[in-house]
Amino acid sequence: MKSRAMVLEKFGASLKASEIDIPVLEEGQVLVKIDIAGVCGSDVHIARGHDPRVPLPIILGHEGVGHVAAVKGERSYVQGGAVHEGDKIMWNRGYSCGRCASCLIHKEPSVCKDRKVYGINMSCETAPYLNGCYAEYMILSPLTDLFIVDGSIPSDVLVTTACSGATVAHGFDMVNTHIGQTVLIQGPGPLGAYAAMFAKSTGASEVIVTGGSQNRLEVCRKFGATMALNRRRTTEAERYEIVMERTRGNGVDLVVETAGSPGVVEEGIKLVRPGGTYLSIGFSQPAGIQRLDFYKDVVKKNVRIQGVWVSDCRHTFLAMELCRQHPEAFRNLVTHSFPLERANEALAAMAGREAMKAVLEM
Amino acid sequence: MKSRAMVLEKFGASLKASEIDIPVLEEGQVLVKIDIAGVCGSDVHIARGHDPRVPLPIILGHEGVGHVAAVKGERSYVQGGAVHEGDKIMWNRGYSCGRCASCLIHKEPSVCKDRKVYGINMSCETAPYLNGCYAEYMILSPLTDLFIVDGSIPSDVLVTTACSGATVAHGFDMVNTHIGQTVLIQGPGPLGAYAAMFAKSTGASEVIVTGGSQNRLEVCRKFGATMALNRRRTTEAERYEIVMERTRGNGVDLVVETAGSPGVVEEGIKLVRPGGTYLSIGFSQPAGIQRLDFYKDVVKKNVRIQGVWVSDCRHTFLAMELCRQHPEAFRNLVTHSFPLERANEALAAMAGREAMKAVLEM
Amino acid sequence: MKSRAMVLEKFGASLKASEIDIPVLEEGQVLVKIDIAGVCGSDVHIARGHDPRVPLPIILGHEGVGHVAAVKGERSYVQGGAVHEGDKIMWNRGYSCGRCASCLIHKEPSVCKDRKVYGINMSCETAPYLNGCYAEYMILSPLTDLFIVDGSIPSDVLVTTACSGATVAHGFDMVNTHIGQTVLIQGPGPLGAYAAMFAKSTGASEVIVTGGSQNRLEVCRKFGATMALNRRRTTEAERYEIVMERTRGNGVDLVVETAGSPGVVEEGIKLVRPGGTYLSIGFSQPAGIQRLDFYKDVVKKNVRIQGVWVSDCRHTFLAMELCRQHPEAFRNLVTHSFPLERANEALAAMAGREAMKAVLEM
Amino acid sequence: MKSRAMVLEKFGASLKASEIDIPVLEEGQVLVKIDIAGVCGSDVHIARGHDPRVPLPIILGHEGVGHVAAVKGERSYVQGGAVHEGDKIMWNRGYSCGRCASCLIHKEPSVCKDRKVYGINMSCETAPYLNGCYAEYMILSPLTDLFIVDGSIPSDVLVTTACSGATVAHGFDMVNTHIGQTVLIQGPGPLGAYAAMFAKSTGASEVIVTGGSQNRLEVCRKFGATMALNRRRTTEAERYEIVMERTRGNGVDLVVETAGSPGVVEEGIKLVRPGGTYLSIGFSQPAGIQRLDFYKDVVKKNVRIQGVWVSDCRHTFLAMELCRQHPEAFRNLVTHSFPLERANEALAAMAGREAMKAVLEM
Repeated sequence: MKSRAMVLEKFGASLKASEIDIPVLEEGQVLVKIDIAGVCGSDVHIARGHDPRVPLPIILGHEGVGHVAAVKGERSYVQGGAVHEGDKIMWNRGYSCGRCASCLIHKEPSVCKDRKVYGINMSCETAPYLNGCYAEYMILSPLTDLFIVDGSIPSDVLVTTACSGATVAHGFDMVNTHIGQTVLIQGPGPLGAYAAMFAKSTGASEVIVTGGSQNRLEVCRKFGATMALNRRRTTEAERYEIVMERTRGNGVDLVVETAGSPGVVEEGIKLVRPGGTYLSIGFSQPAGIQRLDFYKDVVKKNVRIQGVWVSDCRHTFLAMELCRQHPEAFRNLVTHSFPLERANEALAAMAGREAMKAVLEM
Repeated sequence: MKSRAMVLEKFGASLKASEIDIPVLEEGQVLVKIDIAGVCGSDVHIARGHDPRVPLPIILGHEGVGHVAAVKGERSYVQGGAVHEGDKIMWNRGYSCGRCASCLIHKEPSVCKDRKVYGINMSCETAPYLNGCYAEYMILSPLTDLFIVDGSIPSDVLVTTACSGATVAHGFDMVNTHIGQTVLIQGPGPLGAYAAMFAKSTGASEVIVTGGSQNRLEVCRKFGATMALNRRRTTEAERYEIVMERTRGNGVDLVVETAGSPGVVEEGIKLVRPGGTYLSIGFSQPAGIQRLDFYKDVVKKNVRIQGVWVSDCRHTFLAMELCRQHPEAFRNLVTHSFPLERANEALAAMAGREAMKAVLEM
Repeated sequence: MKSRAMVLEKFGASLKASEIDIPVLEEGQVLVKIDIAGVCGSDVHIARGHDPRVPLPIILGHEGVGHVAAVKGERSYVQGGAVHEGDKIMWNRGYSCGRCASCLIHKEPSVCKDRKVYGINMSCETAPYLNGCYAEYMILSPLTDLFIVDGSIPSDVLVTTACSGATVAHGFDMVNTHIGQTVLIQGPGPLGAYAAMFAKSTGASEVIVTGGSQNRLEVCRKFGATMALNRRRTTEAERYEIVMERTRGNGVDLVVETAGSPGVVEEGIKLVRPGGTYLSIGFSQPAGIQRLDFYKDVVKKNVRIQGVWVSDCRHTFLAMELCRQHPEAFRNLVTHSFPLERANEALAAMAGREAMKAVLEM
Repeated sequence: MKSRAMVLEKFGASLKASEIDIPVLEEGQVLVKIDIAGVCGSDVHIARGHDPRVPLPIILGHEGVGHVAAVKGERSYVQGGAVHEGDKIMWNRGYSCGRCASCLIHKEPSVCKDRKVYGINMSCETAPYLNGCYAEYMILSPLTDLFIVDGSIPSDVLVTTACSGATVAHGFDMVNTHIGQTVLIQGPGPLGAYAAMFAKSTGASEVIVTGGSQNRLEVCRKFGATMALNRRRTTEAERYEIVMERTRGNGVDLVVETAGSPGVVEEGIKLVRPGGTYLSIGFSQPAGIQRLDFYKDVVKKNVRIQGVWVSDCRHTFLAMELCRQHPEAFRNLVTHSFPLERANEALAAMAGREAMKAVLEM
């Protein structure tokens, strides 16, 4: 039996439609029939060769929802209960070694040096080959954490929790939030939409989003944004004035950076109130140097800057719970859907920012 | 009655010996006969005009230990009990308004906009005039938190807790520490010595100090440093290698920056392990721009950067407790002592880094 | 000028309508014209003599919203800005000394030994006499934290934040919450309703309320309760079964106790999942002994029990923010309103639990 | 090849010297030649049938240090590096499933329902049979976390970290500590000695130990106790007076309960300061009901009670680090040593409390 798959063979080239043999399952492996694969903004960077982690050839795609086609041996879900053929499932998009100091002593599997991620650092020349979500079938490792999911939430709504949702959950899990908090989000893409909803769902009274795409800014309003500032229609000085006016001259309690672009930190750090937090989530690939006046913007303001790298099983769970509580809002996230074979068009839609989020249907 | 005092009338000029009338005390004020005033590294910057907070003329000195000469009305100590004439005391070097959101909602009086600090932002032309420690007498506000102190610890040992000690305590109070932690400290001055002792006293197994003064590095060994790296005798690449070798290639759990100098953040951030913390304490005056690769050094490593600005009453208490537990070590901190009238020599000794810490005896 | 007031002269007796001279204000005092006073469940206990803190005679009432009738000297709001005659305000119902270890070192003014609370431990024989909210006018101390409030929220909606709201906010401020949390609340009174809304507003997916009053349980549904279990219609064993079924046999992440009644802890502690938290808020007066099997219910389950005593300024702010975000829900909290002179009827309505919450209008 | 082992076949009976076949290793298993096995106080309870988790027959012993006799396949240490024959090692005494919500979402593997512990809930009739430390050889599961250990620390010093040390580490890891903290420890056994050293090593200024064995109390002084109160020589009222006098009438910041005996909670909770913490570690088997006045001792004092159940890999690491920093002190913990075959005498010495800690040498 074979699985269709879209393979990146060369950086900068188009993905190529391929057929790959489905190998015999080994103990603990799960064969998943993919329903929906998410097209992440970072897939665009990966395809262009901007992410240093990626081996070739590779089946792209680290976000997926599917059904169990087969399971070898006994597996159980994070929520409890055994894995059965036909179950609708999600999974943690990466798996860590579970044996090192990062995993066991610091309990931060996100920074495990041996972390593997489907569609990012596992080539389709390495067994079990079906290591990415841009495919009809995929094989999940015995080390992959599995979630059984509620059939009532559409797969194309749920799929975004796998990466954007989980990564933002990781960020919010590290910082203190409180009812009445003021939050500013830099970047109105999927990460930004999740950040808006996490902010609102933990009691924020003010959720300001800044960004360059008016469409995406409008989508963020459906995720709880109370104000949207278009970077193309305001100057940095104007945005500073507006934020200070809305916060009695203090700045916001929390800035969440989800843009990863030049200058974003320099602008955002000035908007944090003294004693507040700057959460940086958006730098998923190299983006040059940020310039900070430590005296003025970090030390004198007693500010915390927290870098956020990927996520672990806990964060996937938190994102799924968020999505489950707000299915209506999350329906607005996926704006474009393509069949698997048109994955290159999906990448183009994400690259051009015409799509908020694209998905592939198998 | 008059008090001798050393007054800064003009930035860049020498302090001038003066005599100032002691006013009649108002309700809640405490007149203190100063025993010892600490000469802080930041006093050197203040005298040169590098600190934007300072009004002129001013009696310098924000670190002091003394005896109660008089008290107007009823006052009590933080530890409990009433204030009496003759008590040996210390106090929180600043006082906040106690009424704003920083003080009451965020419980971070260090960033209160109305925070006053003796010897830094209170002119001697503003009542009650005796607002700095480089003087025979000083008047403490009803808002100043008072500590009664144990006579068995020499005043010149205790005085350093007022600023360096309390500020470092603030930093350690914000981060997680654990037994077996590895810590690297950038800067071997009084802040660095306190950082070494706080690290050791919270269970660190490794305390590496880097700096340019061999004398100061040697002093830090008495405060718990397990390794001292002289910046003049090693290259940045060599220090990186040594730290990685001592930490199995991971980097340290915690870097404490106490230098506030160009390039210090750039070097230090690379020495933090993934998931670790960079605590920045040393930037007490403007020091230009720091350049950070957010992708590589902050986000991908999931690092926390925490700015630390001054301190509050809790931190003074923590520093005093630390000092009380290690009086023998802290005897090594003060290397130079001058009579009040020779305050300019004390400042010069600090400026030239020949002194680890200088004090004035009245 | 005189103020009408309802005075408790003897425990167990009715409150007596009185007229009290309004004294000349001292520096920093604020004269408030009370709009609405809340009648707290604990006022019933106080009037009966069950609260050991209470001196006689006393004007009851620790919850109030009003307008500034006069201010002596300069005062500012916690949010910033000066206090002016005519402003609509709220305030922290108690004030702590601000000078002791609880206030300054532990930053827990709730347990300050010198904490004063209007209507609870300040007699109307002690200056400035108008020390309770069951009155036309009240005088607030210079130590009282003041909030300017948004006129758009009705005073009778806002008044409940002063005690129930702030105390529950204190509890939630001490524990970790996360999206998707399961919460069980014991007691469907005002504390319980606030707990339901705090749970929902911090992302809980399941909010189960247990209690004996069907009316109050129905009100709690409007505050976010997803399930209401009537103690009169179910056995303890049945409730245990239902909770375990809803939580895959684990128990809930967080139990919030707001009942303070015999047996409540014994039942509730069994409903906490291993590693979860039991937050005990309801014991505002003596209630005998609770019997716990520490091996089985505390240690083996790695459970945290957190006692919650009163609140401070931060918590009043958090409760006000919660109320501001959900004005429609909070309209359901106050079920009975009486003129000041009928305060005894209001107490009776609270005692009989026919009222969810009663208020007095001046 | 066979391994000698001491087997419990019947509760209440003596352990029986046996010889058990060493099976062929499966993938990931490690055969350890035991150097030293610790005899835990809970082994006495287990042998008597007081611990509900224990299947028969069983090789007792959950504390061990040994050398790698053989390893099947590739294994690595928590600190990094591959496992080789001849390495001196320790290991986490239990292993959790790593796949459930406790392990992955709450990151509390201590409360994983499938947690296995050598010598406690793994019979020697279940493969791989050699499942306890009272034996010449032992087989460690692929799921067991392994530590390579420094040969310079004697095995009989290190072995105590495996259970007492790790469990106390777990407790301290959950609570806040600060320099100058006051700590009271109930119970002067191995848990109490570890608690004293953890308290001292995180900066406590006062470490009071209470208990009934003068010998053990004297040992605790070597672990940092600043005061020892013999329960046989003082009344509860006298101890209360002494503690209040040493803490200015407040009570201590932290009480650590390591006794698990009737009445211990009732006495200890009264010694916690308002806002402080009661850490309960000692109840490792059923011990009846504790009676608490929630109003007076938990709620009104805003106290946290934290149950502590067993430990995970992180805590073993922390205990090993503590031991490594204080080898001289830890030499005092093991007071009795027996050859394997005299394990019954070792249990008797622990039962009679004549031994602080007994070990078996193979």
